[in-house]
Amino acid sequence: MKKRPAQHIIPGMPPGIIIPSDSAQHPRGVDLLTYSADAVDERPGLAVDDALAAIRAVTQAPATPPQVLWLNVSGLADAQLLKKIGEALTLHPLAMEDVVSLRQRPRVDNYDSHLYIPLKILQQDDNALTFNQLSIFLLNNLVVTFQEQTGDVLDAVRLRIRHGSGRIRQMGADYLMYSIIDTVIDNYFPCLEQINDLMEALEEKIIRNQAHKDSIEYIHRLKRDIQEVRRAIWPLRDAIGALYRDELPNVSKAIRPFLRDCQDHAILLFDSIENCREFANSLMDIYLSTLSNRMNEIMKVLTIISTIFIPLTFIAGIYGMNFATMPELQWRWGYATCLALMAICAAVMIGLFKHVGWLDFKQKTTITRKKRLPHQHAIAILENWLKQNK
Amino acid sequence: MKKRPAQHIIPGMPPGIIIPSDSAQHPRGVDLLTYSADAVDERPGLAVDDALAAIRAVTQAPATPPQVLWLNVSGLADAQLLKKIGEALTLHPLAMEDVVSLRQRPRVDNYDSHLYIPLKILQQDDNALTFNQLSIFLLNNLVVTFQEQTGDVLDAVRLRIRHGSGRIRQMGADYLMYSIIDTVIDNYFPCLEQINDLMEALEEKIIRNQAHKDSIEYIHRLKRDIQEVRRAIWPLRDAIGALYRDELPNVSKAIRPFLRDCQDHAILLFDSIENCREFANSLMDIYLSTLSNRMNEIMKVLTIISTIFIPLTFIAGIYGMNFATMPELQWRWGYATCLALMAICAAVMIGLFKHVGWLDFKQKTTITRKKRLPHQHAIAILENWLKQNK
Amino acid sequence: MKKRPAQHIIPGMPPGIIIPSDSAQHPRGVDLLTYSADAVDERPGLAVDDALAAIRAVTQAPATPPQVLWLNVSGLADAQLLKKIGEALTLHPLAMEDVVSLRQRPRVDNYDSHLYIPLKILQQDDNALTFNQLSIFLLNNLVVTFQEQTGDVLDAVRLRIRHGSGRIRQMGADYLMYSIIDTVIDNYFPCLEQINDLMEALEEKIIRNQAHKDSIEYIHRLKRDIQEVRRAIWPLRDAIGALYRDELPNVSKAIRPFLRDCQDHAILLFDSIENCREFANSLMDIYLSTLSNRMNEIMKVLTIISTIFIPLTFIAGIYGMNFATMPELQWRWGYATCLALMAICAAVMIGLFKHVGWLDFKQKTTITRKKRLPHQHAIAILENWLKQNK
Amino acid sequence: MKKRPAQHIIPGMPPGIIIPSDSAQHPRGVDLLTYSADAVDERPGLAVDDALAAIRAVTQAPATPPQVLWLNVSGLADAQLLKKIGEALTLHPLAMEDVVSLRQRPRVDNYDSHLYIPLKILQQDDNALTFNQLSIFLLNNLVVTFQEQTGDVLDAVRLRIRHGSGRIRQMGADYLMYSIIDTVIDNYFPCLEQINDLMEALEEKIIRNQAHKDSIEYIHRLKRDIQEVRRAIWPLRDAIGALYRDELPNVSKAIRPFLRDCQDHAILLFDSIENCREFANSLMDIYLSTLSNRMNEIMKVLTIISTIFIPLTFIAGIYGMNFATMPELQWRWGYATCLALMAICAAVMIGLFKHVGWLDFKQKTTITRKKRLPHQHAIAILENWLKQNK
Amino acid sequence: MKKRPAQHIIPGMPPGIIIPSDSAQHPRGVDLLTYSADAVDERPGLAVDDALAAIRAVTQAPATPPQVLWLNVSGLADAQLLKKIGEALTLHPLAMEDVVSLRQRPRVDNYDSHLYIPLKILQQDDNALTFNQLSIFLLNNLVVTFQEQTGDVLDAVRLRIRHGSGRIRQMGADYLMYSIIDTVIDNYFPCLEQINDLMEALEEKIIRNQAHKDSIEYIHRLKRDIQEVRRAIWPLRDAIGALYRDELPNVSKAIRPFLRDCQDHAILLFDSIENCREFANSLMDIYLSTLSNRMNEIMKVLTIISTIFIPLTFIAGIYGMNFATMPELQWRWGYATCLALMAICAAVMIGLFKHVGWLDFKQKTTITRKKRLPHQHAIAILENWLKQNK
Repeated sequence: MKKRPAQHIIPGMPPGIIIPSDSAQHPRGVDLLTYSADAVDERPGLAVDDALAAIRAVTQAPATPPQVLWLNVSGLADAQLLKKIGEALTLHPLAMEDVVSLRQRPRVDNYDSHLYIPLKILQQDDNALTFNQLSIFLLNNLVVTFQEQTGDVLDAVRLRIRHGSGRIRQMGADYLMYSIIDTVIDNYFPCLEQINDLMEALEEKIIRNQAHKDSIEYIHRLKRDIQEVRRAIWPLRDAIGALYRDELPNVSKAIRPFLRDCQDHAILLFDSIENCREFANSLMDIYLSTLSNRMNEIMKVLTIISTIFIPLTFIAGIYGMNFATMPELQWRWGYATCLALMAICAAVMIGLFKHVGWLDFKQKTTITRKKRLPHQHAIAILENWLKQNK
Repeated sequence: MKKRPAQHIIPGMPPGIIIPSDSAQHPRGVDLLTYSADAVDERPGLAVDDALAAIRAVTQAPATPPQVLWLNVSGLADAQLLKKIGEALTLHPLAMEDVVSLRQRPRVDNYDSHLYIPLKILQQDDNALTFNQLSIFLLNNLVVTFQEQTGDVLDAVRLRIRHGSGRIRQMGADYLMYSIIDTVIDNYFPCLEQINDLMEALEEKIIRNQAHKDSIEYIHRLKRDIQEVRRAIWPLRDAIGALYRDELPNVSKAIRPFLRDCQDHAILLFDSIENCREFANSLMDIYLSTLSNRMNEIMKVLTIISTIFIPLTFIAGIYGMNFATMPELQWRWGYATCLALMAICAAVMIGLFKHVGWLDFKQKTTITRKKRLPHQHAIAILENWLKQNK
Repeated sequence: MKKRPAQHIIPGMPPGIIIPSDSAQHPRGVDLLTYSADAVDERPGLAVDDALAAIRAVTQAPATPPQVLWLNVSGLADAQLLKKIGEALTLHPLAMEDVVSLRQRPRVDNYDSHLYIPLKILQQDDNALTFNQLSIFLLNNLVVTFQEQTGDVLDAVRLRIRHGSGRIRQMGADYLMYSIIDTVIDNYFPCLEQINDLMEALEEKIIRNQAHKDSIEYIHRLKRDIQEVRRAIWPLRDAIGALYRDELPNVSKAIRPFLRDCQDHAILLFDSIENCREFANSLMDIYLSTLSNRMNEIMKVLTIISTIFIPLTFIAGIYGMNFATMPELQWRWGYATCLALMAICAAVMIGLFKHVGWLDFKQKTTITRKKRLPHQHAIAILENWLKQNK
Repeated sequence: MKKRPAQHIIPGMPPGIIIPSDSAQHPRGVDLLTYSADAVDERPGLAVDDALAAIRAVTQAPATPPQVLWLNVSGLADAQLLKKIGEALTLHPLAMEDVVSLRQRPRVDNYDSHLYIPLKILQQDDNALTFNQLSIFLLNNLVVTFQEQTGDVLDAVRLRIRHGSGRIRQMGADYLMYSIIDTVIDNYFPCLEQINDLMEALEEKIIRNQAHKDSIEYIHRLKRDIQEVRRAIWPLRDAIGALYRDELPNVSKAIRPFLRDCQDHAILLFDSIENCREFANSLMDIYLSTLSNRMNEIMKVLTIISTIFIPLTFIAGIYGMNFATMPELQWRWGYATCLALMAICAAVMIGLFKHVGWLDFKQKTTITRKKRLPHQHAIAILENWLKQNK
Repeated sequence: MKKRPAQHIIPGMPPGIIIPSDSAQHPRGVDLLTYSADAVDERPGLAVDDALAAIRAVTQAPATPPQVLWLNVSGLADAQLLKKIGEALTLHPLAMEDVVSLRQRPRVDNYDSHLYIPLKILQQDDNALTFNQLSIFLLNNLVVTFQEQTGDVLDAVRLRIRHGSGRIRQMGADYLMYSIIDTVIDNYFPCLEQINDLMEALEEKIIRNQAHKDSIEYIHRLKRDIQEVRRAIWPLRDAIGALYRDELPNVSKAIRPFLRDCQDHAILLFDSIENCREFANSLMDIYLSTLSNRMNEIMKVLTIISTIFIPLTFIAGIYGMNFATMPELQWRWGYATCLALMAICAAVMIGLFKHVGWLDFKQKTTITRKKRLPHQHAIAILENWLKQNK
């Protein structure tokens, strides 16, 4: 997970003040997308005043078929621009303050005339995962989105509007909001799969004994990433549940089945991340037991070598002594006997080690499975019983 | 657990689109089973249009006694076939999308005119466990099931219908749905027993010290399998509870006791899998302590050998020195005294090790149990008391 | 915990079928006990038809004072006998199926005309604990119990009826049911105390360093036993709570205080087993730390011996070299100087080890407690304050 | 925690029977305290019949101002005495049975005419903590307390009544009950502080490396003590909550704020014990890591000594060989060169160890803290902003 | 976390008595701040009687526009002063007792005429964190705050009132209360960031292998700090939730959105501290695995050196023996052959170690990532599909 520069909180600041983070991106105009069942009008990089004027025009003179508007701002550095939009569309100041504060938990805030839904897009920048905070406002026939950075995750929704496929052009702003949320959630899956792939690769390394002492660092970083993603996903279930269970303004009953489906995806997502977490914990365990095993191997080698040679060296030491009277030294076969003695000594030791099993370094645990009632057999029993009890 | 090829999610896809997984199996026609209290008509491998026509015929002209229909599709590769069935029977597009998406959590989705219940069949293919996603739709007098792969788990239900044993032929489509769910749940038990057997075999290996360094891998894989099965079982309890507690369409009150019984089985199943989980964790602990014990043994051997021979070698070293004046070397019994000294030295060491208890490698922990009030004695006390307090 | 032979589940079997386990015990007749406030009639080992006839007689012609009947069956091998009883007393087939299935969780099933309560008796057979499944049916003035094995746990209840002590003869079938449940629950306590005694004995062994490598196996088995007992106790609280909270058929308000007391015992039981569990976990920790400590000791011995003798041996090695010119060898006090040097060397080493504290193997951690405000002092302060603030 | 002799439960005993524990203390009479707003009458060590007569007198002829009675019994060995009190005051037999059973969980039992509240006093006897079970009965204008042992914890309440300070003499029996409960709860704090002091002393020992292998035993015993205290505290919150939330007989609304305050103390207590628990777990972790660290040190010493001297000894061994032709032996500076070679060899080794950092045994981890926005600075930023945005 | 001197609880003390801690700070007068929409009057260090008189004046003769009063006391040593304030403003004695007791959990106590809200300010004194207990009373148009120590955290609120920025001067005493709570909560964030920085610095040390045996102590202290902060934060969520959900006296509906925002901050805070906790646990794991790794390295060095030299020394020992007949000694190339033999022996050993991989001490785990479906590709697939299914 790429680290974002910390955004300092200034305790005591009055509420509702928009203070962009120092590292915030500058927006290049705003993107306005207007569509109805039979027409689409895309105007990217518009000046903010033009966009607001266009919105006002549509709002004051509703067309038939009804038009849906989507105003998107990518980059949160321009406090004036944000303030202007907030005031023109009467978005709540507390919500506008949260738009630029990059630590929002996913949730649904109901400000009566509009909903405020902060989410986190998980996107992949040059091999590192990074969060991109997305704030969604749902007004009557208008969706306003603020993105921390320019990203292409929402392009899929634009594509669908452009091609008019599915229901999206037939339905209202609430369906647009649903489509955005659904796309954001589905976008987590490829990232999780990547984390999973990484862990599987690491698992293989560890099991094949090719992992080194930096593995623990890998696992540690993975766990921290998983933890961060988990914190972003955890509140999603309740947030989406609130969307389709509560009677919220601007959310029609028609999109409830879609939101329920969306919540199912969020639950699935949470299941997957929990799975990752347990995988990471299990990896840790295997890695640590691998360390112990390795220590065992090292100690075995040391012990075998030492235990064989220390007694031999002692024998050699004895006959290296310079006592005047050491009868063995004069024997004709003294040297040979001594060597033979050493050889026997070594052989006995090796035999002992073999017996204890210390010399097979490649042993495998073999488990013989008990025979089990196979499924076909169970079916046969059942059929037999059925015939007898007709 | 055999690994299924991953099914990629394409973020931004419109909802309700049927996109079969690349590795999905092709269906060989559909199976239609029509039965009433006194007749059974099995037509496997039917063309989809014929099957739908047959269903329409029964629906439009209800017979007496009432007929129940069961349409089964094994293999989810044919998007056209699925779409045709979905449209003909007016199954909800979101449900049909989930039929081909292989990550569904067991649950009950109520689409007013019909119920959608995704489940996971746990089946055993050549010694590895594998999941087979089963989607059940319950309509008025019709059950539609979609299976990821051809499997024989539901054969037991077909058998019972064929032989007309028990209540199954007397009751409606909801009882058929119950029978299918019950069979799927009961089918988990043999698989869990197999996991349990494996763990018991492993436990014995570890306790008898015959486990090797791949044991940790075994345990790790078992834990992952248990984890996956657990995730499939965990939501079952609530799903079945919803079936018999909520007032759902097409589910009659008569089958509530059966569903409650079915839920009891699901709870039992969850208990068993939790048991497996704790067993696996405990295995891990014993295995790790075994490693420590083994290290202790190895180190003890090394220490005993080194500690006995290092001082002896030192003595030999001293009398191997070439000083001009070393009176002991000239003594008549010098050599013998030296050897005796060494022998004493070694004996003292061995005595010390015996005292510390390092030389018994086969010690057993013996625990003397305190005498306890036996049950008969308690009964006697009670009887005595009863006589006195009449 | 003695292992019961596994009872295979045959997936797909129709519900309500009585299939006794292969290892089930054969019943020796049935036991019928009839009592009222002033009479007791015990008829053990009766033929089933006679017993049913006797029950029918009492039911059709109620006597004054009202009679309570208790029908007990020990041994579940005879499917015909069970079926006959079930049909004669109109017990629900699903409940009768559960009577012979030995994996029931304790619970209360309400079948309107009767209650079904499966429990597990924990009894002690030749030093091993074993479960004995007990199924209780409560009808109007009749309690039917089915036991997996002949056991003497319920003898206490029979004794009380026989002696007519306490309220038991004055009250109805629901009080009999309560007495049975209460006896079953209280019977767990001696077994838990035995597990506790075992763990305390093991704790002492481990702390006194007399535990060997099989200790981990002991702890592991104890944990598994505790786990099994826990699973049998865990649902008791809710089950008994349901008995006295819900308005159940055949349960009068008069026995509610007794059931509440019974639930208190169940909660206490659960507390005790949780205590056992934490004790076992803690034992594991001490044992593992003992292993580490032992390794430390072993390594310390090795290091001390090696570190003292290796330099000495090196010195001896130097003066064992055969160089032509080695002036020290010719010195008069050369040998003595060399020995002195070695002695100094060893003394320095031993001094160093003493300094580091490696030579005291029997050190104790001494903790000096801070003086604390004693209770009497607190009372004095309070009294003083009271006098001043009158 | 001092161990109490186990109190055996006799399964099958009829309910409501008073069976004192074998080790129960004998009461020395009963203590009766009568007080009203303007008078106090203390009569300790009264005969039970006199006390009951006095209570009857007050109950039958209520005085003005109303009198409150407190009957206290210390020691539970005398079953007759307890039975007499129970019957005279119509206390429920099930509650009286629980008075002598020493395993009660703190709770509030409502028997309509009176409340039964078992608590555990934690008191300190000769440096060991011990539990003293206290049973409180609240009747109309009477509080009855039964204590397992004579204790001085309730003296504080007696003192307050005697001195008439605060509200205690103005209010009824429910306030007396509250005062007793409050005193019992507050009495836990000094004991917890003592456990905490002990752990802090142990922490310092462990961190300063002065802990020995009995530390694990200390921690283990502390954990068991904490566990027992925790089990006594855990249910207090709910019990007291029930007292002020439910409409209970004899409890007036006036004392609700006091009970809420009392519950706050109980929650605080639970927080403290949880804190202790985590402290103990953390101590365990440090201790175990200390063991690993020590092993590292020991091994480092061994490795350094061995690695330096083994090669040197080898060189000495070479020149101790007796080959006929070994030119170096005849060189003039052979011996000196050999010694120099050895010195270089050792120096290289020591240099290497220095490089790897194995020779500094006293290293400290130094962490340089990043500069942080100080509070004053934040205030300055805020002031600046306020000036600009007036 | 700087340790505060323990505040002893005297069990049995009557409720509602103000007993300041021995180490409590003496207040230097009280601070009174009166403001309305158009005027601010700050009077720090006022005598308590003057302040109470001023408050009485405002309360009896309400001005237009309405005035809000804020009375602040820093330092809790003066029991008389606190008692006087408590009685003059009719604050509840139980709340006043809690003001000086320094263990309050954050909560909201409703005393009908006023609210009592104890909080803990986390402030930084000379590099150590310390708690400063803050008690807030909310009356009709008056906020009373008591601080354990003089602190500058609330200066930010004073600044805002002085500059009249934002809504603070337009709104009532409840908004002042909200501003104080909000400032206290936001003040936790910089402290948490500091803990986080410390842990990141420690993480780098550990991963770079520069951590020493005192690291465990660091982590232990951090965990204890985190634990304490956690306990202070944990109840905040519910406390603030109670403020905006319940209908409380003196709290207007207008400030509900602000309180909800404040609760969001509290939840965020709790998330952050949980994050810290998991970070600390993970640090522990890496540190312990680092210890194991280090041991592995040490043992590898020892084993390599020993295993190479022990056989060589043995060979040298053989040819150092003094047997009369040892033919090799007389060979011309005997010495050279012997040295060659030793060299070969060493080379074989080194080769073996290379093969096993023990000689690369700097290995890195390299993981090759599988190629993944990039986001652009997914968009392309989607676009393609959209075109085909128009």
